[in-house]
Order: sequence, then structure tokens, then C-alpha cells
Amino acid sequence: MSKDRELRDRAQIVIPGGMYGHQKADWLPPAYPQYFERSEGTRLWDVDGNCYIDYMCGYGINLFGYGERSIDEAARKQAALCDGMTGPAPVIVELAEKLVSMISHADWAMFCKNGTDANSIAMVCARAYANKKKILIATGTYHGSAPWCTPIEEGITPEDRANNVYFEYNNLESLRAAFKQHEGDVAGVFATPFRHEILADQFDATAEYAREARRLCDEHDALLIIDEVRTGFRLARGSSWDAFDVKPDLSSWGKVLANGYPISAVVGSEKARTAASKIFVTGSFWFSAVPMAAALQTLKLIETTDYLEVSLTLGHALRSGIQEQAERYGFDLHQTGPVQMPQILFANDKEMKLGFAWTQAVLRRGVYLHPFHNMFFNAAMTRADIAETLEATEASFKEVLNDPSRLQPFAEKT
Amino acid sequence: MSKDRELRDRAQIVIPGGMYGHQKADWLPPAYPQYFERSEGTRLWDVDGNCYIDYMCGYGINLFGYGERSIDEAARKQAALCDGMTGPAPVIVELAEKLVSMISHADWAMFCKNGTDANSIAMVCARAYANKKKILIATGTYHGSAPWCTPIEEGITPEDRANNVYFEYNNLESLRAAFKQHEGDVAGVFATPFRHEILADQFDATAEYAREARRLCDEHDALLIIDEVRTGFRLARGSSWDAFDVKPDLSSWGKVLANGYPISAVVGSEKARTAASKIFVTGSFWFSAVPMAAALQTLKLIETTDYLEVSLTLGHALRSGIQEQAERYGFDLHQTGPVQMPQILFANDKEMKLGFAWTQAVLRRGVYLHPFHNMFFNAAMTRADIAETLEATEASFKEVLNDPSRLQPFAEKT
Repeated sequence: MSKDRELRDRAQIVIPGGMYGHQKADWLPPAYPQYFERSEGTRLWDVDGNCYIDYMCGYGINLFGYGERSIDEAARKQAALCDGMTGPAPVIVELAEKLVSMISHADWAMFCKNGTDANSIAMVCARAYANKKKILIATGTYHGSAPWCTPIEEGITPEDRANNVYFEYNNLESLRAAFKQHEGDVAGVFATPFRHEILADQFDATAEYAREARRLCDEHDALLIIDEVRTGFRLARGSSWDAFDVKPDLSSWGKVLANGYPISAVVGSEKARTAASKIFVTGSFWFSAVPMAAALQTLKLIETTDYLEVSLTLGHALRSGIQEQAERYGFDLHQTGPVQMPQILFANDKEMKLGFAWTQAVLRRGVYLHPFHNMFFNAAMTRADIAETLEATEASFKEVLNDPSRLQPFAEKT
Repeated sequence: MSKDRELRDRAQIVIPGGMYGHQKADWLPPAYPQYFERSEGTRLWDVDGNCYIDYMCGYGINLFGYGERSIDEAARKQAALCDGMTGPAPVIVELAEKLVSMISHADWAMFCKNGTDANSIAMVCARAYANKKKILIATGTYHGSAPWCTPIEEGITPEDRANNVYFEYNNLESLRAAFKQHEGDVAGVFATPFRHEILADQFDATAEYAREARRLCDEHDALLIIDEVRTGFRLARGSSWDAFDVKPDLSSWGKVLANGYPISAVVGSEKARTAASKIFVTGSFWFSAVPMAAALQTLKLIETTDYLEVSLTLGHALRSGIQEQAERYGFDLHQTGPVQMPQILFANDKEMKLGFAWTQAVLRRGVYLHPFHNMFFNAAMTRADIAETLEATEASFKEVLNDPSRLQPFAEKT
């Protein structure tokens, strides 16, 4: 029996359903391992010793690869002094100053642990701003797993979402109608820099949508919130919608902020400061110094290295390489979203037969792609990694083409 | 200008209100520092170099003192292999097995980051259990800072709490009435092992209350949830209500679980397993291995050392020493709650004049007491620490008695 199987059997006893949340391997094709025992740079090792080039980066929590030395060193230096205490360490002020200097709309920052924390704070802050209730959310966008936003409704009541108003992403009429329907009671609008949902092609926000969201918020004295948890510092060295010249009032950050150390943040404009100072939000570990020191060094690398350009270059190389292969082997592939946050889906593959067969074949060749979640590049990636990946993807296209018996529908995996 | 003042001035610009949450020093008397730069064992150093014996333990997050070596070593060993990845490390299974073995009612465990996460999961799980809505909460108890439970209502809507039903702690009639009023729709009851709220004397749960809560939950097929976030492993080496022979269906743990490393947990009984496996809760850093390795070593120390007996002995020594001093100097002092989680308030001191003057005098003598929040002992405490503390408290009683000009009302501090 594999070590992975043995651990899964033990977990079945002591963890509900064997695992929970976004890291539950049951959602994945059967060849995917549940447990890993080592990580370094671009690589992951599962508990049975298989090594993978990891295109998930821990579901987006690292930007500079696993165990980036200067970030780990900053964390170790801080840990030698202090971490969580009866009050914060000076690094909380330095980190807030740094974010304010890097994010164009930011006049202040607050720190928490998860993306859900940051989005919940932004939501409550928007409601405190002018004492209004309704929060406009694009249908189907993921903003976390708290009762007001978790995508699965078990244990959730209608009251938890009574003040959520849904509109269609990129649809100006739909957004205007939501404002109109709740005239005088719209507290804020959640924006996602681009559309990145599971099991679907990714697509960009339009400039018109971004600008209209800003205009409507101004007209109705509501706050515009950009959820940068997944996109932050992956699209730009600051706010993602600077590209549209649209500044939000609040934005939420997490994932890569400290290259894997646990910290998230809300930043806001002057306009939202009073509201942010009135709400009560806190957590036992929100003031811990080690992740803040790691975040400061991560931000320094973001400012001073060409990580973004490297990811773009390699991301393009991977995308065009896979595209060329897919065409050669006759597959209709959708590669969508920014190249550094790629989504790869097969056309007309609702049951994921092709997607599962191909990503499993790629996995067996030492490359961890995700069959239906957007992926992530990190700055440790090299041309050699891309070349190795392209060898694996090509061999896998060939395998899928030659052995249709590998095509099993999605439903059969559980 | 002190370094603390300088940092506060800088923070005023980049952090709303200068600081937020439970670590905001504005709630404290003016002599209290906001920022700390070092911690070790029982001691904290503020940014101006003052050293304190810390009776807050980072608001309860350490049980074995700051920087306990074997726990830090376990964390370092894990960090050398991996922390947050694209899937969990085997330590998640080991940790779940360990909690199941130590907590009498636990058949399974799930991990998250903050106490608020754990309580929110328990709440959603209770509602998923039999598809009912109402959660019974004792008025004034703190269960976290999410919209459904945060104690300050800025930015919170009535809908966020539409399914909370409040009853009076330790009051059987009140609890029965809440069940009756919502007959058929009670999903769960939140219990706190004993009553530990700010600005108030602490008091124990009665056995009758604990047993009636259990009986009513059984009668109405609702889940009994014990919030052990603050009390966990401080009252017992397992579930706090084992003392009453009352087993909950769910309990939430955090704070000391990894002696300061960021992790919290929900554990539950067989009865709650299916519900727990159906809900969707997750977080970017919930699967990180380092805090889990630290938790395993913390639990080993909990099982194998006399930390609890040491805290009880020293807690009694401190309480009786302070009591003797208070009587000698003619102060009517309320020392309440378990000795290892002491609350110290002066009688008839609504404006906190005595409390603030005395704790500030103690602080200047190198001992960090909290004027209105329960405090925490850790296992690094020694008889010498207690002796040093008692010197400080005695001198401070004398000072307050001799210089009534030090008595400033609570309101003037801000």
C-alpha cells in the first residue's frame, strides 16, 4: 500500500470526510496524491517520494517558490526576537507603511490571517462607512468560506446572505439595476480583478465595467472593494485595476503577501479610514511578528526583482508551447487568463474526461497541473522547468490520443 | 520621545485608529506600552527596553512561556521540510489522531487559524447537522469577531444575528425558555467552560447548568458546543467539562494549541461527523505544517509534564499573596476565576480609578497585569517570578494608598 493510501485511510477515521476544504484530493483525478512531505523552489515531493514541478504554488500562496532563502531568513531573524506577544512588534507599522507606499489607493492597512478574514473585514467596513447594508457581489465569484460567502450552502441560512445582492460580472446593466433596486442602501461592491472561477474559462474585466463600478459607487456613496487575495502582486506590483486607472476604496490581500507565511491584509483609502477604525475585528494571531517580517522581505523582492517579467516570459513560453502541441495532436484547448495564472480546459469536456486523463498523464511525468482550478507561476521557475513541463505535456497528449480507454468521466472518480 | 510614542505616531497615519482589535493599547491605562520587541519565557521587553513579567501570555496564546525550546525545535524541523503546500503534510493526520486521543468527546478534528474560525465552523456545523437555524448563546459571552458574534456592532446588520438566541449564563430557566421559544429550530448551544468576560468578575459554570444544557440538546436533537478557545488545556488536559461529566458534541480550540504558532481546531463527536464533512470551510494557510508540528510537541508537553500542577501551585501563591496585601492595605479586591486564569478587579471601582492606578504602578515595577481582562499563567513561571510580582504589587498598593492623585477615571485615559 502506498504511504498516501495509508494516510488517507487513517485520516478517514479522524478527519471528517477524510479531508476538507480546497486541499481535499477527492475533487481531483485518482492519481493525484493527497499528502506531501517536502517542498523546495518549484518542486513538491509527495509522501511516496514522487517529485513534481508544482504549478499550484500551494494554491497561490508562494510567489518566489517554496522556501525562498531571503524571506525565510527574515522570518528566522524575527522569530529569534519574538512572534505573537501581548502587543504587536514594530514590524506591523513598517509593513503598513510599506503597503501604503506600494498600493496606489492605500492610505492605511490592517492585518489578519486568511483571505476570508480580509474580505469579511472589507465587507463590514463598507457597511460601517455610511451605515448601509447591501453588498453587491458578482454571481459565482469566490470571496471566501465564511457564512456570508461560502460557495456550498450546507449549514448556511438565507439570513447569512440576506444583504448580498448578486449581479452579473462585466455586465453594466446588471450592476446598475442592482444599485437601482437597493437605492440608498448599497454599502459596497465586491470586484474581482479578472474572472477566475473553477471549472470555467477565465476572462478579463472590461475597462467599462471597472469604470462604471467606480462611478456608481461614487454616485451612491458606496465603497468599491477589490478582492486581490488571489491576484495580488501576480498581475502588477500594486493594485490590479491601476491598469484601468480605477482606484478602489478598499482591497483585500492574502496568499502571496509573505510567500506562504500566514498573513492577509485589508488596505483602504482615507475615505474608509473612520469606518475601519470603528469596527471590531481581531484574532489571536493577527499581530504575530514573524509573518510580517516575511511579508516585508517578500514586498522588497516584489519591488526590486524582475519576478513579474520572468513569470510573464515563462508563462507565455508554456502557453504557446502547449498550444502548439494541442494543435498538432488535434485537441481543442482553452488556455485562459493571464499567462502567470493559467487555466487549461479542454473544449466540450463537461465530464472532464479529457482534462482528467491528460492532467493525470502529466502528473505521472512529474508535473502537477490542476485540471479545473487556475494555476500559478512563481519566480523560481526556469526555462528548464518549462522545457521539462512541455515534454510531459506532449507525451501526455500522445498518450490520451492513443489510449481512449483512459478517458473516464468526472463522476466515476469518487 | 519614547520609541513607543514614535511608533504610535507613525501608526496613527497607516493603521486606522492607530491600532485595532484586542491588542489596541488605547483600551489600557496610559503607562502601558503598545509595542514590544522581544519575548522569552515569562518575560516581555517593550520597544523602550523595559522588561516585564507577562501575565497575559500574548492574550493566552502561550502555555509554556515564550519560545519554549522543544516546541520551536519541532517547528524548525518541520519548516526545513515544508509548511504550506498544494496539499497537507502527514502531520495533519498525526495531530488529528492526537487530539482525538486526548479530548474525551472527540472522534475527529479539523484545523483552521483563529478562534473565530473554529467557532464559526462549529456554528455552521451545528446548523448543518439537522438543518436547523437557531444558535443559543449566553448573553455577553465572547466567541469571536465575525459578523455573527463580534461584540461591537459597527457594520453589523440585524440579519447577521437573526439566528442567534440569547439566554442567561448558568440560568436553567432562561436556557429552557430559549429552547421552548424556538422549538424544533434549535441547531446548537454555545457553552463557555466558565464565565470569563472583560470588566467583570469571573465565575464558574454550575454542574446543573452544564448537565441541563446537555439534556436539552439531547431532547431537542441539537448540538452542544463548548468554546475552549481561551480555556483549552488551561483547566484540564482534555475537555473542561469532563469535570461535570458532560461531553459536548463539538468544541473549539485555539490560542495555546501550538504555544503561539497560528492554529486553531474544531473537534467533534461521531454524531457531528457527517455534518462536518458536508460544510465548506477552508483557508489559504489552514493546511500549513509548521504550526501543526508545533502543536504536536505542545500536546506532548501537556501530556507529559506537570505544567498544570505548577500553574495551580503558583497561581494559588500569587492569589493568596495579593489577597493578604490587599487586606493589609485595606483594599477590597475581587480575585476571581481559576488561579491560572486570574481576573483582579477592585470592588466599587466602576470608573477603574483604583484598577488603573494600581496596575500602572505594578507595570512600572516590571510586571504586566491587565486591569480588566482575565490573565494567564504559563509553565515557565517560577517561585522567583511570583516573589518579584508580589514585591511589585505590594509597593503599588502602598503607592496608591499614599498618593490618591494617581486615581484618574477610566474616561480620561483616551
